[in-house]
Amino acid sequence: MTSLAIYAFQLLAKRAVPDDLVDVPDLSPPDDDHMEDSNPVENEIFSSWALFILLLLLMSALWSSYFLQQRRIKAIHETVLSIFCGMIVGLIIRLSPGHYIQDAVKFNPGYFFNILLPPIILNSGYELHQANFFRNIGSILTFAIPGTFISALVVGIIIYIWTAIGLDNVKLEFVDALAVGATLSATDPVTILSIFNAYKVDPKLYTIIFGESLLNDAISIVMFETCQKFHGHPVKFSSFFEGIGLFLMTFTISTIIGILIGVLVALILKHSHVRRYPQIETCLVLLFAYQSYFFSNGAHMSGIVSLLFCGITLKHYAYYNMSRRTQIATKYIFQLLAQLSENFIFIYLGLSLFTEVELVFKPLLIIVAFISICVARWSAVFPLSRLLNFLYRARIEKYSGINLSTNSINIPDEISHSYQMMIFWAGLRGAVGVALAMGFGGEAKWALLATVLVVVVLTVILFGGTTASMLEILGIKIGCVDEAAESDDEFDIEAPRIHQAVPHLMGNRRFTKPTTKVAAFKDNLSSRNSSMHNLLDGENPNIISGDDDEDFAGSDADDLMLEPHGTRNTFSNGTGDKGVLGAFLSAEEHAKWFTRFDEEVLKPVLLDTIPTGQVSSSDSTNELSTGGSRRD
Amino acid sequence: MTSLAIYAFQLLAKRAVPDDLVDVPDLSPPDDDHMEDSNPVENEIFSSWALFILLLLLMSALWSSYFLQQRRIKAIHETVLSIFCGMIVGLIIRLSPGHYIQDAVKFNPGYFFNILLPPIILNSGYELHQANFFRNIGSILTFAIPGTFISALVVGIIIYIWTAIGLDNVKLEFVDALAVGATLSATDPVTILSIFNAYKVDPKLYTIIFGESLLNDAISIVMFETCQKFHGHPVKFSSFFEGIGLFLMTFTISTIIGILIGVLVALILKHSHVRRYPQIETCLVLLFAYQSYFFSNGAHMSGIVSLLFCGITLKHYAYYNMSRRTQIATKYIFQLLAQLSENFIFIYLGLSLFTEVELVFKPLLIIVAFISICVARWSAVFPLSRLLNFLYRARIEKYSGINLSTNSINIPDEISHSYQMMIFWAGLRGAVGVALAMGFGGEAKWALLATVLVVVVLTVILFGGTTASMLEILGIKIGCVDEAAESDDEFDIEAPRIHQAVPHLMGNRRFTKPTTKVAAFKDNLSSRNSSMHNLLDGENPNIISGDDDEDFAGSDADDLMLEPHGTRNTFSNGTGDKGVLGAFLSAEEHAKWFTRFDEEVLKPVLLDTIPTGQVSSSDSTNELSTGGSRRD
Repeated sequence: MTSLAIYAFQLLAKRAVPDDLVDVPDLSPPDDDHMEDSNPVENEIFSSWALFILLLLLMSALWSSYFLQQRRIKAIHETVLSIFCGMIVGLIIRLSPGHYIQDAVKFNPGYFFNILLPPIILNSGYELHQANFFRNIGSILTFAIPGTFISALVVGIIIYIWTAIGLDNVKLEFVDALAVGATLSATDPVTILSIFNAYKVDPKLYTIIFGESLLNDAISIVMFETCQKFHGHPVKFSSFFEGIGLFLMTFTISTIIGILIGVLVALILKHSHVRRYPQIETCLVLLFAYQSYFFSNGAHMSGIVSLLFCGITLKHYAYYNMSRRTQIATKYIFQLLAQLSENFIFIYLGLSLFTEVELVFKPLLIIVAFISICVARWSAVFPLSRLLNFLYRARIEKYSGINLSTNSINIPDEISHSYQMMIFWAGLRGAVGVALAMGFGGEAKWALLATVLVVVVLTVILFGGTTASMLEILGIKIGCVDEAAESDDEFDIEAPRIHQAVPHLMGNRRFTKPTTKVAAFKDNLSSRNSSMHNLLDGENPNIISGDDDEDFAGSDADDLMLEPHGTRNTFSNGTGDKGVLGAFLSAEEHAKWFTRFDEEVLKPVLLDTIPTGQVSSSDSTNELSTGGSRRD
Repeated sequence: MTSLAIYAFQLLAKRAVPDDLVDVPDLSPPDDDHMEDSNPVENEIFSSWALFILLLLLMSALWSSYFLQQRRIKAIHETVLSIFCGMIVGLIIRLSPGHYIQDAVKFNPGYFFNILLPPIILNSGYELHQANFFRNIGSILTFAIPGTFISALVVGIIIYIWTAIGLDNVKLEFVDALAVGATLSATDPVTILSIFNAYKVDPKLYTIIFGESLLNDAISIVMFETCQKFHGHPVKFSSFFEGIGLFLMTFTISTIIGILIGVLVALILKHSHVRRYPQIETCLVLLFAYQSYFFSNGAHMSGIVSLLFCGITLKHYAYYNMSRRTQIATKYIFQLLAQLSENFIFIYLGLSLFTEVELVFKPLLIIVAFISICVARWSAVFPLSRLLNFLYRARIEKYSGINLSTNSINIPDEISHSYQMMIFWAGLRGAVGVALAMGFGGEAKWALLATVLVVVVLTVILFGGTTASMLEILGIKIGCVDEAAESDDEFDIEAPRIHQAVPHLMGNRRFTKPTTKVAAFKDNLSSRNSSMHNLLDGENPNIISGDDDEDFAGSDADDLMLEPHGTRNTFSNGTGDKGVLGAFLSAEEHAKWFTRFDEEVLKPVLLDTIPTGQVSSSDSTNELSTGGSRRD
C-alpha cells in the first residue's frame, strides 16, 4: 500500500510540472552534472520527494515497532521488518524510471559515519550502566579486542583460501582478505539488545554483549584502516606487531581524547554561568560530544572510542553540573537521535540491496562468507570464554589461598556455557561492516560489497529472528529487574518501577568484580524466590566484619557511579565460606582504588556539588566547602 | 586565535598522513570526481575536519551569545558576530591550499532548504503565542502579502532600470528583475527578535514583525518560483493576475496541508496507545511535522507555510494528547534544532562570502540594490500602515455608529508612527534570500548572487546593530512582561515569572482584536504605573453586562489558545465610553465564532481531555464523558 502510494507520488510529481511552463531559460538553476533528468526544477522537487520517502519509511518502521510491542508479537523483530521495508521500497525505486531518487537514497558511507553512527554511540555511552560496564570490563575487552582480531583473521584466511581457489573469479591479496575479515567482524548490538530489553535478560549478559559490540565496531574500523595502510606492501612478520602497536596506540589515544573532552565540559559547566542559559548549555554539550568524534577521526584516531568515553565521562561528571533542564534535554535528545538513527540504518541497508545498481552477487562467495563468520565467531567466543573462566578461577585461588578443585568447592563459571552460546548467537553483523565495505576499491569491489551486504542482512534475519527462541532453549535468566537501572527521570514511564521483593534486605551495594551465584550462598538462598536470585545476581554480601566502615565508604562511591537515586540494598549472609568470600572481597579491594580516587580527588575538582543522597568523606567535604554553591 | 588553530589543524592533517604508507592501491576507496586532492584517505579525514571546523564555529557563536548576554553587552549582536566569524574563517579557508574543505563548506541551497530552515519554522509555529498572532493576523497578512509584493515590485523596477542603464554590464529581463526583487524581499526575524526578546519589547510589535517575517519568507519563495515559471514568456497584463491567482492558491493549499497533518497527529495520538512509548511518540511527532514540509514542497506548494501551520495546529491540539515526556521532549528538541540552525545560518552566510569562489562583486549594483530595498521597505510599510489605521478607524466607526472625528474622540492608531518606523527598521534581509539567489541561472548569476549576499550581510550589520538605539530613539515600550507568555514548563528558568502588579485585578482575558490604549481608559489609568499599562495593553475591560456568561465562555476559549496555565486577569473599568467600547466588543463577537467552534466542536473531537484549569461548556462535558480517560 505504501509502496503503491509512493509510486503514485512519483508519477504525480512527474506530471505536476507542466512542460510548457518550464523551459531551461537564463535564470534557471544550473544543471547538476550527475542528474540525468535535465529539468532542474524537477530535481528540487525530487529531492523533497526523496526525503519524503525516506521519512515515510522511518515512520513506518517506528509505527511497526509500536505495533509489535503493543501486540506483544515476538516472532518478528522490528529491525527485520525495517530491512524488508527498505528492500521493498528499494526494489520499487529501482524499477521506476529515472535515476534521481535512486541516487538520492543510495547508501553513502560519509552520511553513515558522520551523521547516523555518532548519535547511537553517544547515546550508548550516555545511558551506559557504568557499574555493570566496568564490572565486566575484563570480559568485554577480551571479547572485543582479541575476539575481533581472531574473528577477522579466521574470516580473512577462509576468504583468501576460497578466492585463491578461484571458483568465483575474485582475486584478493592476503591483506585485502584481512580487510574483508575486519568488515565482517563488526557486530551490531541493536537487534539483539532490543530483544534483551524486552525480555529483561540478565544484566551481566546484556552488558557483555553490549560492551563488546560497541567496542568491536571501533576495533573493526581501526583494523580495516590498518590493513589498508599495509596494502601493497610486502607482509612481513614484523608487520603483525606493527599493526598491533598502531592499533593499541589508536585505542588508547582515542580513549584519552574522549575522556579529556568530557572533563573539559565538566569544568566549563562548573566554572561558567552558562547553565543560566539552558538552551545554549544543551547545544554546547551536544556539540562538544560530536567534536570529540570529528576531532578524533580527523586525527586518525578512532572516533567511536572517543565518543563512547566522552559520553561516559559526561554522564559521570558533567551531568551533575548541568541545569536540570539540560539534564533532561540531553537525555531526551540523545535518545531521540539514537532511535531515529538506529531505525534508519536498517532501512538504509534494505534500500541499498537494490539501489546500488552495480552490485555483483556471487552466491558461492556469499555462502562461504556466511559460513566463515559462523566459524570465526565460534573460534573467538568459546576459547576466549574458557580463558576467562580459567583466569577467574586462578584469581580466586590466588586471593583465597584455597585450591578450589582439591576442596571440591564448585564455583560457577564466570561465563557459563549457556552464556557462551548466547554470546555466539549475538554475533549479528551490522551496518558498520557495510559502511566499511563501501570503502573497498579495485575490481573485486562490487562483489565484496554485495557479499558483505547480503551476509549482514542474513545474520540479522537468521540470528536476530531466532534469538528469542535461543533464550528459551538455553535457559537464560529473563525477567531480571535491575534495580540499579532506575531512571532519575520522573517522566520516564518506561523505566521499571522497582519494588524490593524482600523488604528486610538492607545494606549497601558493592563495587565488585562480576560474580555468579556462589556455592556458599546457594543453600542460604535456595529457599528464596527467583526474583531474589535475580536481584542478587552479581552482588556480594556485605560481610559483617571489621571492614564495615570501609565497605560503606566504598559502596557510597559505588553509588556515585550509579544513577543518583540508586537503591541501597543487599542481604545478610547467614552462613558462608568466609575464605572464598574473603577472596572476592580482597580481589575487589584492588579494584576500588579508582572509586576512592574518583570520590576523593576527581569529583570535588570536577563537580560543583556532590549529588544529594550520597555520603562524602571528610576530605571531600572540606574541598566542597570551598567549591561554591551549585546555583549562582 | 581560533582561526590560527584551525589553520594549524589543516597543516597538521596534511602532514599526519605519511606519504609512503598511502598509495592508491586496489582496495582503496574510489576517487570522487570533484576532489582535486587525489588521496581518498585524505578526503575522509578532510570531511571530518570540515565538520569539525563548522561545529567549532557553531560553538564559538553559541559561546559568544552566552558571553554577550552574561556581560549584558548590547552594542554588538551575536548574529553579527557569527557573520564575522564566518567571514574570517571563510577567508582563511579560501587562502589555504587545497579545495576540499572549501567545497565542503560551500553554501548549498539544498542543505539550507531541507535541513536548516525547517527546524526554525517548526519551532516558530510550535512556540507561537497563538492569541497574539491571530489577534494581529490582519496586520500580519497585510504586511506579509501585499507588503512583500510591493517590496519585490519596487526592487525589481529599480534593478531593472539600473541594469537597463547598463553601467554594470548586467542584462536582465523584467521578470528576472522581479525574481531578484523577490529574493531581496524575504526578511529575517532572528536578529531583530532576539533583540526584542532581550528588551522585552511590546508583544504586539513583536508579533507583527515576527508573523510578517515568517510569512514573507514563504511568499518570497512562491513569488520567486512564480517568476521563474514566467521566465522567457511574454509578460502580458493577464500574467499579473495569473501570478496572483497561482500564489493565493499555493498559500491556501499549503495552509490546509499543514493543518490537516496537525489534526492527523492529534487524532493518531488520541486513538492509539502510542503515548505509552514516549520515545516512539516523540519521533513520530517530529517526523510528521517534517513530512508536512517535504510533502508540500514536493507538491509544488509552500513547505514553509505548511510547516508553520502544522506547528501551530500541533501545539493547539496534539500537544494535549501527548504524554508529558513527549510534551517536554518536543519542546526542547524543537528549540535546540532551531537554535543550532539559526546560529549556523549566519555563520554559513559569512563563510559563503569567501568560499564561493566565483562571486563577481559589482559595487555600484550592490549600492543600488541596498538603496532599492530601503526604498521598497519604505513604500511597503508606511502606506500599508496608513491603510490599516484607516480600516481600523472605519471599523470602529461602523460598529459604534459614532463618527470619531466629529466627536473629537481620539483613538490611537492601530499602528502608531513609532511602530511603523520600527517595522521599517526591522526589514533585515536574511538567508532565505541568499538561498533563493543560489537558484539564479544565466550569465548574471554570480554578480546577482554576490549582490544579494552583500546586501543581506549589510542589512544585518547596519539595521541589526542599530536596532537597540532605534528602540530608544523611537520611544518604543520596553520591559513589557507578557503574562500570557508563561511557560508551562517547570524547568524553564528562562521564562519570566509573572507577578501581578496590582493584586485586586480580577476577571478574564478576552479574545479581542488588537487595541492600543483607548482614550476612555486613559483618565482611568493615568494614575497607575507603567507596568500596568503594559499589562493592559491589548486588553479590553470586562464590561459588567448581560454578556458576562458568554464572556466567560469566550475567555475560556481564549485561555485555551494560550499556554495551559495562562493567568486570568483583567481590571475593572470605572468610567468609560460604553459606546466606543461597545464597538470593540461587538466587533469581537464576530471574531469569536472560531473560538466557540473550536471549543465546542473541534476540541472534543480532537483532544482526549480538555486541559485542566479550564471551564468547559456542558456540551463538551457530555462529549468528554464518552471520550475516555487520558491515560489508558
